Amino acid sequence: MAMDQVRALLEQLDSLKTNLHEQDFLLTWNQWTDELKAVLVVAEVLEELHRANVSTRVFDSGLAVANFRDKSTRTRFSFASAASLLGLTVQELDEAKSQIAHGETVRETANMISFLTEIVGIRDDLYLGEGHRYMAAVAAALEEGHEEGVLPQRPAVINLQCDLDHPTQTLSDLLHLQKTFGSLEVLRGKKIAMTWAYSPSYGKPLSVPQGIICLMTRFGMHVALAHPDGYELQPETIERAGQFAAESGGSFECVESMGEAFCDADIVYPKSWAPYYTMENRTAALRNGDASVLGKIDQAGLENNARFKEWECSKELMSLTRGGKALYMHCLPADISGINCEAGEVAADVFDSYRLATYREASHKPFIIAAMMMLTRLEKPGDVLRRIVARGESRRMM
Amino acid sequence: MAMDQVRALLEQLDSLKTNLHEQDFLLTWNQWTDELKAVLVVAEVLEELHRANVSTRVFDSGLAVANFRDKSTRTRFSFASAASLLGLTVQELDEAKSQIAHGETVRETANMISFLTEIVGIRDDLYLGEGHRYMAAVAAALEEGHEEGVLPQRPAVINLQCDLDHPTQTLSDLLHLQKTFGSLEVLRGKKIAMTWAYSPSYGKPLSVPQGIICLMTRFGMHVALAHPDGYELQPETIERAGQFAAESGGSFECVESMGEAFCDADIVYPKSWAPYYTMENRTAALRNGDASVLGKIDQAGLENNARFKEWECSKELMSLTRGGKALYMHCLPADISGINCEAGEVAADVFDSYRLATYREASHKPFIIAAMMMLTRLEKPGDVLRRIVARGESRRMM
Amino acid sequence: MAMDQVRALLEQLDSLKTNLHEQDFLLTWNQWTDELKAVLVVAEVLEELHRANVSTRVFDSGLAVANFRDKSTRTRFSFASAASLLGLTVQELDEAKSQIAHGETVRETANMISFLTEIVGIRDDLYLGEGHRYMAAVAAALEEGHEEGVLPQRPAVINLQCDLDHPTQTLSDLLHLQKTFGSLEVLRGKKIAMTWAYSPSYGKPLSVPQGIICLMTRFGMHVALAHPDGYELQPETIERAGQFAAESGGSFECVESMGEAFCDADIVYPKSWAPYYTMENRTAALRNGDASVLGKIDQAGLENNARFKEWECSKELMSLTRGGKALYMHCLPADISGINCEAGEVAADVFDSYRLATYREASHKPFIIAAMMMLTRLEKPGDVLRRIVARGESRRMM
Repeated sequence: MAMDQVRALLEQLDSLKTNLHEQDFLLTWNQWTDELKAVLVVAEVLEELHRANVSTRVFDSGLAVANFRDKSTRTRFSFASAASLLGLTVQELDEAKSQIAHGETVRETANMISFLTEIVGIRDDLYLGEGHRYMAAVAAALEEGHEEGVLPQRPAVINLQCDLDHPTQTLSDLLHLQKTFGSLEVLRGKKIAMTWAYSPSYGKPLSVPQGIICLMTRFGMHVALAHPDGYELQPETIERAGQFAAESGGSFECVESMGEAFCDADIVYPKSWAPYYTMENRTAALRNGDASVLGKIDQAGLENNARFKEWECSKELMSLTRGGKALYMHCLPADISGINCEAGEVAADVFDSYRLATYREASHKPFIIAAMMMLTRLEKPGDVLRRIVARGESRRMM
Repeated sequence: MAMDQVRALLEQLDSLKTNLHEQDFLLTWNQWTDELKAVLVVAEVLEELHRANVSTRVFDSGLAVANFRDKSTRTRFSFASAASLLGLTVQELDEAKSQIAHGETVRETANMISFLTEIVGIRDDLYLGEGHRYMAAVAAALEEGHEEGVLPQRPAVINLQCDLDHPTQTLSDLLHLQKTFGSLEVLRGKKIAMTWAYSPSYGKPLSVPQGIICLMTRFGMHVALAHPDGYELQPETIERAGQFAAESGGSFECVESMGEAFCDADIVYPKSWAPYYTMENRTAALRNGDASVLGKIDQAGLENNARFKEWECSKELMSLTRGGKALYMHCLPADISGINCEAGEVAADVFDSYRLATYREASHKPFIIAAMMMLTRLEKPGDVLRRIVARGESRRMM
Repeated sequence: MAMDQVRALLEQLDSLKTNLHEQDFLLTWNQWTDELKAVLVVAEVLEELHRANVSTRVFDSGLAVANFRDKSTRTRFSFASAASLLGLTVQELDEAKSQIAHGETVRETANMISFLTEIVGIRDDLYLGEGHRYMAAVAAALEEGHEEGVLPQRPAVINLQCDLDHPTQTLSDLLHLQKTFGSLEVLRGKKIAMTWAYSPSYGKPLSVPQGIICLMTRFGMHVALAHPDGYELQPETIERAGQFAAESGGSFECVESMGEAFCDADIVYPKSWAPYYTMENRTAALRNGDASVLGKIDQAGLENNARFKEWECSKELMSLTRGGKALYMHCLPADISGINCEAGEVAADVFDSYRLATYREASHKPFIIAAMMMLTRLEKPGDVLRRIVARGESRRMM
């Protein structure tokens, strides 16, 4: 039965047009929709095979480099799990804290860590205008290294969260929606509210809301974005969300309040992020080498946050959603009022009703990352998966 | 010959009644005696197979999470070795220093790190009343996660030292005794002195002496505990030691001095631990958030220690043991007078005579941990071990 | 074709007389020339097999301990890559910063981390007279542990840079020369300039220049060493270089300037290192426990450096080499004038012409380390490699 499911998924994979082999995975909006679907399909196959105790080892040796320029627990473990699932060894690159790295150093280091490397996973999300730029620079260095014969293989760079996008998170979110609602098709016409929410904690990146509005609009969903004044997203992502919605038959609107966004929503994603000007000031301070002012900027950002404590996902707001039963989503950890903070993003009773659902949402990430690894590194991932099924080796002895 | 030995051990394993599958391994006193024997037997099998160059790989992928909330070298390496032996990948969970973690956070983190995890090893030994509680909370969260379908498998929590017990150490100690004296049966009626000893270093946990008195009393040994006033162990462990001794036909007594404990002892285990009130004050300070007073408490504890410098395992004291030839044991590192401290737990000449023996004592730990991994994760570990023997794959090419 | 190449190399390996099995790899000058050639040959075989997608897994389990007592990125990744290539799991030993470790502690720790360990890689290069001594102490402890039955196998210590030598670097350099010029034979009679160069950064170890002069003189090369007064190398390495040159038919000379060394050179290796007296003062301070004066010593060393800014590998100096076309070498990272420092070891235009060549030079290191692992741990590495070829397992699915 699990294997029938796998076979059906592999047929679906055959029908998708993709060009990910020997590429990187940096921003969902630079990938074809079929490529995003391929990530979901391969992730599902890997989940099925894992549950069916089938070994999915693809690599006999080789490194998966983890370069976390910002702290991480769940993505770190998801990356390590994905590597283990496919047979790669994680090696952490411990740079100093996120900084504007010198071009020469980036180019050299990228090659020096990659002689036997298949994957370079990077998190670099602290500074607007820097994270993606850094990942692109690493990718270009690896491309040159491979072309010039320095590297026997071309490692793929996988974005584990940058200043613009967080594709391993948003695709896990999408797989969660697909499994919760039944299929991608069923999601067409559903309304999702991506809203800012109050948090007493540090200036969180904009990558999740930006990633969500640019991804969900591609699948025919109605996306409503809401945030207080001053919490704008990067203009290019707003523009892209509008274009994607137009192309897919969905819609994209910016509204004024959490309540307006929640109205008749099928899905809500209330989550804090930093004020846009804070993020810009941080980058400017970084560029000027004013590391000492970063604390002050963050402090000012938090004080500004405090003006919007009423942006909390409460039971009352949830009652505005379709039938009062919208699916609550969060990338975790959430700031839960009265639990891990005085006042936060979500009321304790709301979070509690969806706690296990948010765990399931997160549970897809290792498989999403493993799917990205397979699709970027294998010429014919469908063929390899069929050979894996035929091989039928056990993931563990029973 | 090695294989005959293995076959005999596997028959022994068949005769033991165990219920460890899908369970955790937290406290020896919550496990049946047969389960403890099973750990010893499987550890021995793994040692034999390792020496016979037989691969004992059970897992093709999957994580063994190492969560060290206190520093560690030997247990860390033993855990990594055990994981490697069975085919698991270690991923370290780097939390801030040991603290009273929030229930919500514990529950969430336990799941977030476990989507492809088979084992969660935890060391949390700094605060009386906290370490075991934390491990039990993690175990409960994993149980819920598995039951609710969040986790495809139920990871086992393995206690790598808590405030109450240190089962990977004490079972290594017991395997060392078994190998030194010939069998568990021969240990019946032997006298072991578990005594406090002076140390100039920080407030060491009570878990080793507590674990030793609760374990050795189960195997018919005569256990004598000695320590200065103020260095009491947790009352519940004293009580259990008495009960176990009564059940097994051994004995348990608390005596006043190292000399009294050593008298006619077959085995001595002189080791420092912190004053009980120090441990209680530490926990209170932690609960009140008075992290700053911890240093003062530890300082006071050390000053109190200094009143008992004569509690040193000297040649004279050793001469009181049976034939002057008791086996000296230590979990290492020992504070050796004149070697790594001015005055410490043991005289240099005594330690030197038993140095290699203490290394051998420690050498069992990787196999004890691997045995716990197999017994908690496999439904029929005996069958798996027989298939491993039949498979006969090499651990390394020769 | 790749396989024909491999077969030819294996025949070459058969013809070499080596005695590395169950030994350590600490200093090239304590190894026979045939043993050094064997490292090169096995490294080449491993490179060929890697490119031909042949799995070179030798170990099914076991640890490769990485003990970096000084910072490292490229050697750390090379070591991890080598371990992955052969099937070993890296476990890092995180000691406090480099220090004169107590004999008892070294002996004990060496055993405690090695119950399932095949390789112990160590970097300890900060103090003249200490690094090699430490590695030898670890090796002696492992030898004793194995002989006494504490360790089921005898882990090999591999020098990842000490105060005297940096064999994984210099043998990578030699393999780079062999590949660039065509063969070891062609290198006979070539001139290599090993010269000091200015750097604004910290007191770099002497191990690379010492290693280079002692290695290249063994292969019939003409080695010219140049440095400012006060930047002498360890006298014993100067002496050895002279002896090796005499034996091999090469030559070794100390000259006064970079220009003189570069004159008609086929290869140049301009690289900074610390003043000798600085290194001696550092060790004295360490021995006296004057950790606080280390900063001052290093500062004085840097100020002394500043008197020799003209020691820069410039286009003008390069024009003095044979045909103006000498091969530029560097162990990376280089201090490049105007790029990552104001004034440094090499002019930007010179470095840029050889940038990719220095990457290729570095690319051999994972394979050199893996070759050392195989040669020290396997009795008949040639036989094992032939069985690996015959086995023909894929390194990764295609």
